[in-house]
Amino acid sequence: MALFDLPLEQLRTYRPERDEPADFADFWTRTLEEARGFDLAPEFTRYDLPFASVDVYDVSFAGWGGHRISGWFITPRDAEGPIPCVMHYIGYSGGRGFPHDHLMWPAAGYAVLVMETRGHGGASVGHPGATGDPHGATHPHAPGMMTKGILDPEEYYYRRVFTDAVRAVEVAATHPAVDENRIIVSGGSQGGGIAQATAALCPSVAGALIDVPFLTHFRRAVEITDRDPYQEIVRFLATRRGDEEQVFRTLAYFDGLHFAARGQVPVLYSVALMDDVCPPSTVFAAYNHWQGPKEITVWPWNGHEGGQGFQREEQLRYVHKLLSDA
Amino acid sequence: MALFDLPLEQLRTYRPERDEPADFADFWTRTLEEARGFDLAPEFTRYDLPFASVDVYDVSFAGWGGHRISGWFITPRDAEGPIPCVMHYIGYSGGRGFPHDHLMWPAAGYAVLVMETRGHGGASVGHPGATGDPHGATHPHAPGMMTKGILDPEEYYYRRVFTDAVRAVEVAATHPAVDENRIIVSGGSQGGGIAQATAALCPSVAGALIDVPFLTHFRRAVEITDRDPYQEIVRFLATRRGDEEQVFRTLAYFDGLHFAARGQVPVLYSVALMDDVCPPSTVFAAYNHWQGPKEITVWPWNGHEGGQGFQREEQLRYVHKLLSDA
Amino acid sequence: MALFDLPLEQLRTYRPERDEPADFADFWTRTLEEARGFDLAPEFTRYDLPFASVDVYDVSFAGWGGHRISGWFITPRDAEGPIPCVMHYIGYSGGRGFPHDHLMWPAAGYAVLVMETRGHGGASVGHPGATGDPHGATHPHAPGMMTKGILDPEEYYYRRVFTDAVRAVEVAATHPAVDENRIIVSGGSQGGGIAQATAALCPSVAGALIDVPFLTHFRRAVEITDRDPYQEIVRFLATRRGDEEQVFRTLAYFDGLHFAARGQVPVLYSVALMDDVCPPSTVFAAYNHWQGPKEITVWPWNGHEGGQGFQREEQLRYVHKLLSDA
Amino acid sequence: MALFDLPLEQLRTYRPERDEPADFADFWTRTLEEARGFDLAPEFTRYDLPFASVDVYDVSFAGWGGHRISGWFITPRDAEGPIPCVMHYIGYSGGRGFPHDHLMWPAAGYAVLVMETRGHGGASVGHPGATGDPHGATHPHAPGMMTKGILDPEEYYYRRVFTDAVRAVEVAATHPAVDENRIIVSGGSQGGGIAQATAALCPSVAGALIDVPFLTHFRRAVEITDRDPYQEIVRFLATRRGDEEQVFRTLAYFDGLHFAARGQVPVLYSVALMDDVCPPSTVFAAYNHWQGPKEITVWPWNGHEGGQGFQREEQLRYVHKLLSDA
Amino acid sequence: MALFDLPLEQLRTYRPERDEPADFADFWTRTLEEARGFDLAPEFTRYDLPFASVDVYDVSFAGWGGHRISGWFITPRDAEGPIPCVMHYIGYSGGRGFPHDHLMWPAAGYAVLVMETRGHGGASVGHPGATGDPHGATHPHAPGMMTKGILDPEEYYYRRVFTDAVRAVEVAATHPAVDENRIIVSGGSQGGGIAQATAALCPSVAGALIDVPFLTHFRRAVEITDRDPYQEIVRFLATRRGDEEQVFRTLAYFDGLHFAARGQVPVLYSVALMDDVCPPSTVFAAYNHWQGPKEITVWPWNGHEGGQGFQREEQLRYVHKLLSDA
Amino acid sequence: MALFDLPLEQLRTYRPERDEPADFADFWTRTLEEARGFDLAPEFTRYDLPFASVDVYDVSFAGWGGHRISGWFITPRDAEGPIPCVMHYIGYSGGRGFPHDHLMWPAAGYAVLVMETRGHGGASVGHPGATGDPHGATHPHAPGMMTKGILDPEEYYYRRVFTDAVRAVEVAATHPAVDENRIIVSGGSQGGGIAQATAALCPSVAGALIDVPFLTHFRRAVEITDRDPYQEIVRFLATRRGDEEQVFRTLAYFDGLHFAARGQVPVLYSVALMDDVCPPSTVFAAYNHWQGPKEITVWPWNGHEGGQGFQREEQLRYVHKLLSDA
Repeated sequence: MALFDLPLEQLRTYRPERDEPADFADFWTRTLEEARGFDLAPEFTRYDLPFASVDVYDVSFAGWGGHRISGWFITPRDAEGPIPCVMHYIGYSGGRGFPHDHLMWPAAGYAVLVMETRGHGGASVGHPGATGDPHGATHPHAPGMMTKGILDPEEYYYRRVFTDAVRAVEVAATHPAVDENRIIVSGGSQGGGIAQATAALCPSVAGALIDVPFLTHFRRAVEITDRDPYQEIVRFLATRRGDEEQVFRTLAYFDGLHFAARGQVPVLYSVALMDDVCPPSTVFAAYNHWQGPKEITVWPWNGHEGGQGFQREEQLRYVHKLLSDA
Repeated sequence: MALFDLPLEQLRTYRPERDEPADFADFWTRTLEEARGFDLAPEFTRYDLPFASVDVYDVSFAGWGGHRISGWFITPRDAEGPIPCVMHYIGYSGGRGFPHDHLMWPAAGYAVLVMETRGHGGASVGHPGATGDPHGATHPHAPGMMTKGILDPEEYYYRRVFTDAVRAVEVAATHPAVDENRIIVSGGSQGGGIAQATAALCPSVAGALIDVPFLTHFRRAVEITDRDPYQEIVRFLATRRGDEEQVFRTLAYFDGLHFAARGQVPVLYSVALMDDVCPPSTVFAAYNHWQGPKEITVWPWNGHEGGQGFQREEQLRYVHKLLSDA
Repeated sequence: MALFDLPLEQLRTYRPERDEPADFADFWTRTLEEARGFDLAPEFTRYDLPFASVDVYDVSFAGWGGHRISGWFITPRDAEGPIPCVMHYIGYSGGRGFPHDHLMWPAAGYAVLVMETRGHGGASVGHPGATGDPHGATHPHAPGMMTKGILDPEEYYYRRVFTDAVRAVEVAATHPAVDENRIIVSGGSQGGGIAQATAALCPSVAGALIDVPFLTHFRRAVEITDRDPYQEIVRFLATRRGDEEQVFRTLAYFDGLHFAARGQVPVLYSVALMDDVCPPSTVFAAYNHWQGPKEITVWPWNGHEGGQGFQREEQLRYVHKLLSDA
Repeated sequence: MALFDLPLEQLRTYRPERDEPADFADFWTRTLEEARGFDLAPEFTRYDLPFASVDVYDVSFAGWGGHRISGWFITPRDAEGPIPCVMHYIGYSGGRGFPHDHLMWPAAGYAVLVMETRGHGGASVGHPGATGDPHGATHPHAPGMMTKGILDPEEYYYRRVFTDAVRAVEVAATHPAVDENRIIVSGGSQGGGIAQATAALCPSVAGALIDVPFLTHFRRAVEITDRDPYQEIVRFLATRRGDEEQVFRTLAYFDGLHFAARGQVPVLYSVALMDDVCPPSTVFAAYNHWQGPKEITVWPWNGHEGGQGFQREEQLRYVHKLLSDA
Repeated sequence: MALFDLPLEQLRTYRPERDEPADFADFWTRTLEEARGFDLAPEFTRYDLPFASVDVYDVSFAGWGGHRISGWFITPRDAEGPIPCVMHYIGYSGGRGFPHDHLMWPAAGYAVLVMETRGHGGASVGHPGATGDPHGATHPHAPGMMTKGILDPEEYYYRRVFTDAVRAVEVAATHPAVDENRIIVSGGSQGGGIAQATAALCPSVAGALIDVPFLTHFRRAVEITDRDPYQEIVRFLATRRGDEEQVFRTLAYFDGLHFAARGQVPVLYSVALMDDVCPPSTVFAAYNHWQGPKEITVWPWNGHEGGQGFQREEQLRYVHKLLSDA
Repeated sequence: MALFDLPLEQLRTYRPERDEPADFADFWTRTLEEARGFDLAPEFTRYDLPFASVDVYDVSFAGWGGHRISGWFITPRDAEGPIPCVMHYIGYSGGRGFPHDHLMWPAAGYAVLVMETRGHGGASVGHPGATGDPHGATHPHAPGMMTKGILDPEEYYYRRVFTDAVRAVEVAATHPAVDENRIIVSGGSQGGGIAQATAALCPSVAGALIDVPFLTHFRRAVEITDRDPYQEIVRFLATRRGDEEQVFRTLAYFDGLHFAARGQVPVLYSVALMDDVCPPSTVFAAYNHWQGPKEITVWPWNGHEGGQGFQREEQLRYVHKLLSDA
């Protein structure tokens, strides 16, 4: 990739106006209240593998609409006393994969809870998923999830997902092995967008790790990138010509800009300057709005893969320091 | 394209064994009975365009689960007495498009009813759709519709679609302008697969026009073509390794081979020898099982586009003769 | 697609200088006079299909050089008195296709005359053509038609095509079913460029429908798009290094900017903001020069497909109102 | 490339039946007689470059229909007495390029005459051409030359080209520097097909060098390769559905199989086993029919590029020996 | 992917003749003896990360030619007594990545030693490497490693790599935490090929895990796949025409068929039927020659990604059982 | 291609700041001195082909590290007295090809020495090479040569290549047929970058011909082009995150900007405005820094192929005039 977005020095101060719906907060308060009307009903089923130092559970709980959401919950064996827990949200199209994909945090002494994104993971070879989205859509949508229910904020797919994500934090918090005051939300790309929203909707979390977040600054994103998944929205708009206003009205309730502007907890972002999937200006737009203590790692020569293992090690050190200092 | 499937002389006699579930007929009888438990409730809303020789209606009715299914219903203006009606089913991903896309049959003096395929048409630039699929899936699926609910015949997406298709014939039959004894089902690719199934499930129709049908001879199709949508199934199997048996068990209730083997009405098929989306051997496999009077047009140099306008004119003449002779 | 051309607010006023050859008008006057030296000799041969509400004719006439140009002529059956006629010009590479592709205007009570673009339609699967271009070129050209004869305005391919187009209007005007004062020219892409030129060369037409016109503002087009057919010119220039000046001298006689600047009749344009085949700035450049009453429909999320069926319905309503008001 | 055609041991004996038109010989006799009705009128214009050991001429002559055909004629400076001359025909889409592209034969003491293929060379960056094809086509054709005039052997593009090629040999023969008994025809791909035809139509030539010949065994070629230019024929057939019989009737007058079967002079072929443009079975089909003394170089790991410089050196040695022995 | 290789029932018994050089065993005996002339000189440097349950070391040792080879060595913290160790070899182009990529075996109570493939890992975004190949080549080679030194078995790149791999087993064996009788070699693709060779060259290992092995049955591989890295060899042969015999002579010393035929230890293979990088027939060719106790997992719907996490879990259980039973 | 770099009028004056290492001159002085520690030891072996007007030699000599570097040396036969010699350096990935590829300069009365670029030519079908790079790299690198040894200027691949290039001039100078005062260095792309460096390092050459030079203005190049080979550097940086500073420190010793700024001899550059491999701004950046008499040919419609044969003829005339005037 060549550089295609703003130069770094402009990105550092790029902080676009936000156009937040008047009832944004109400919308989410009401949404979460409704979800809490369902019993959380977490289930932890031991998953049998010849592991010696960790315990693996197939976890499920009642997410939005009471639908069962699956994931992994992995703890260091013989952990004493409540330990920190890292919530991990998954990138677009992926399922939870396998327990051995998620051993970094347990090796460091933390629990990890990996939440599946409902409906994803059916064609993510290598990262199979197990959670469906039992809620259909009353209008057709583009293949993929970006436009499922997009004509109505109440019906939009990510309303269910963000709600699931908040409920997953509650699942972690209620587990006896977990210290509810030391829960960190994390994820990259779609997972970064979910973590960003969750950090705003769950102000009790202890911190956030947000890599190349998706679902952020939709207006700019759909105009400057040719790549999926943002282009799913463009194809929908190209097809259903009269729906533009309604589409952006819906997206305004889900735009990472508004969640970032509510971010109060310590956060470690990362961004890649050659990322044409989640363009750097959309990431800095959110980062520059974040209210709490914040750091950002810039990967100048990378695309959407971002910091990868390098960033994972930075996160390990960041969290270690954050929780040690606390 | 080069030729890649069997040579034509072998295709002419290719008639593979069928492996039909014992309760195939029961499954469909029960499915249609359930659907008929909902009031059909057809609605015809005049669609306002400055047309002089046709009347256009936005039609909707209760399909599977009572969900509203949309389409176009177009009649020649001033048609006298009940006239024949062509049911048209749509290819994969497309919506119903526009009334002016469907003027051929009305110009010939027939009504046409274009049924939308639920959920499609959200990203088919130029052929927008209006019908959602309000039924979600309890397991993740590959983007697209091929694997939605594929782990259970009761839940599989095409159970709903084929049911909608039968109900659409009933809608046509109940309309006062339509002669219920002269309804023809038609479609290409996915639409051809739907027409093929409907001709078997609605033995009262007067004939069928089936072009390059999809959803037929799944076992062979997924092994010899690299192309979507059949590859949606392969990606799902590649992801969810243990599900192969269940996937093919489900597909057996929807395989065009079994519907074709029940086909009693006059039929005009078409097939293209360079078609790598719906390979010619899968089409001949069905055609060679068809029981009723049959003809097939072979397009030796074409891919999945098949006979296009040439075939439309053949159909026009075929139907004209079929209904004149009757 | 991402947005790649000027922002909409700049497009609204983008009106580049024109560099018109001094003898532009003379060139065309002379060209048309020469063509009229051949007897128009229109022939209407009834095309046999079991249609009930329209009459279809295979039409041909003497175009440039007296060469026979083919097309369809379709009228509503039993139309009374002279009726309006829509001239339809075809996009790049396409042939006339089939009568059932052109039933919209007849359904609205108008005649339609579809003119083939000479030489096109030999590899447009689905839209076969029947008209050759019996005039060869004394220099090699890039595959395709953009550079055929491009070293001399007298020899350039579009000199023949634009002349054919004017003659086609004359064919329509002389038909007894057609009201010569109510002829509308129309087309998209190459067809839009032809309609644009014809509206200037035939000031007697009643209006024009011009979608995403090609053959317009060549200088800018070849510099900002990577796509064919404009790139045919670039490949020619890349090959024949010394011919640049002559190429642009020739193109100046065919540039839509100069035709648009002569446009006096009511016109409905359409443009797509993500169109990288006929970039929006080249369309607005022409539109902003048009002299007569004008409207433009902007499709913000579409590429070269433009407004498609949505635009066809707009055109139906626009023409209906234009001719009703007249 | 993987291997995709017959294995080498089968290729060695692959000699398909030929289906030659009864009047094949008459057709060509008549064609050449007509062409000879035009004065050959060769012109040799010195081309000015600071060369010391060669003389370069821009040559032109009257080809089919008397049309001027251009090329290069290059001789070693100070050559004494009539010297051998290599006729070189060019591959598809290319023009003659530059004199410095053709210095190998002159460096070896031979003259070389490079004939342009009429109409080609307009978009062959690096190999510009200067010869048009002033003969248009009465039917549309696919972009490219393969289907130009393909509905009638009299009108087919290669009738003109093969005639030009024979005339070019006559041009060489009449030049005082050239020994008319030592003219060798040569070329690769399209150029190989032309050399193959010319060797049959000009039995007076002293030998032929034919690399990966195109225009040979059309029936098989269009069925086993996906690549252009053979696919130009497939796209034409895919578009104009009723023309198949006529297309193959025309091609039968131009099929290299029938020319090879008339080949009496010594020939050096080359073939590449991974060539998916001119598949090896089509090359061996011709080679195995050749009547005269013959050798073939097999390049097992190459695609259509074939033997390249290695083959050029083989040719140099082959011709040197052939003419020394003579 | 569609299926493109032999059907499964033929694969089960596909056991091609082997053409082993007479001095194959001598070649490797001599090669390893030479390597052992260098002091192994392993170094284990603690790598600082806030891990709680594992110890991570940056390991290096003297491989072929005494060159330093790097890797990771990770042990469960507080492991008692010598424990089993899994040697892991890496796929083509990859480097060792990060410690957190390799936590599965330590979580199960085993040590893991990840050996870098010299020279790889310079452009494997996400899996950076640190080991160069300080040995140049006296002939040019195709980009990539497949043809580096391919004109001479002594110089061939994989001579160095396989030697490094054997030395790495020796490194593991000498580490006090490791039980030298319970070392398992493992890897996928190139890593599978290396593990396959190492299992033959180090008969003391306790078992092998070989996924979709590369570097096996070269003759067939280069003829039936279009994909890299096997195609690196084809491009080299296509370029250097006279080297074919020498290339295959060299490869014969490195062909997995000959190593597999020496395999005596228990082995778990895996193969994917749609794998067009390491085609299934090349895998079964080796598997069917293996002499020791053997199992193979067949992934029918997967490409070169093979069994992924599913296979990792199978390996975990397989090794657990193998070492428990022992 | 569309235009993507600065407009021509800005390119004309684009002259970026240079950031030259303080010891740049010392580095090269020392490097060349070391190389001269090896006996140049040129060998000229006659290459047998039936040529009449040229003599061809397979030449080799001791380049950097005393490694043997191969090439062609071709002289007009019977040349009298010392004649000028054109040094030709080769583009990325290519080998020296065949003698008949290099006959232009001999035909004009000059000798030509074609130097191979060590390690290239192993997969350049049609341009095979014979020279290896016996110097390995102590760190992994991206496939290709751009990053081989890039972590240390002493080890960097182009240190060896530029040294070879200077030595090759010395080889030419010592040949009795060559006039050492009339040596011209030339090349395109990588060859242009080498010629550019050599002209600075060998101020005794008589002139330089530099086409679309590569290896110039690295900083800008890696940011504005998506294309290889510059992208090899980006992929390396994307993989090895901490190495950016060192990489650019190394490249500073090899950047064409610094060589161009030392250029004193007459030079003919060429540049192509649609060149996305060696973007025009990087070429003008060097050209505008050149100190000696200079001309530049601008190809406005071409990509990286640049001026091709047209430029070769310009060079022929330029050199002829330059050496005639001298």
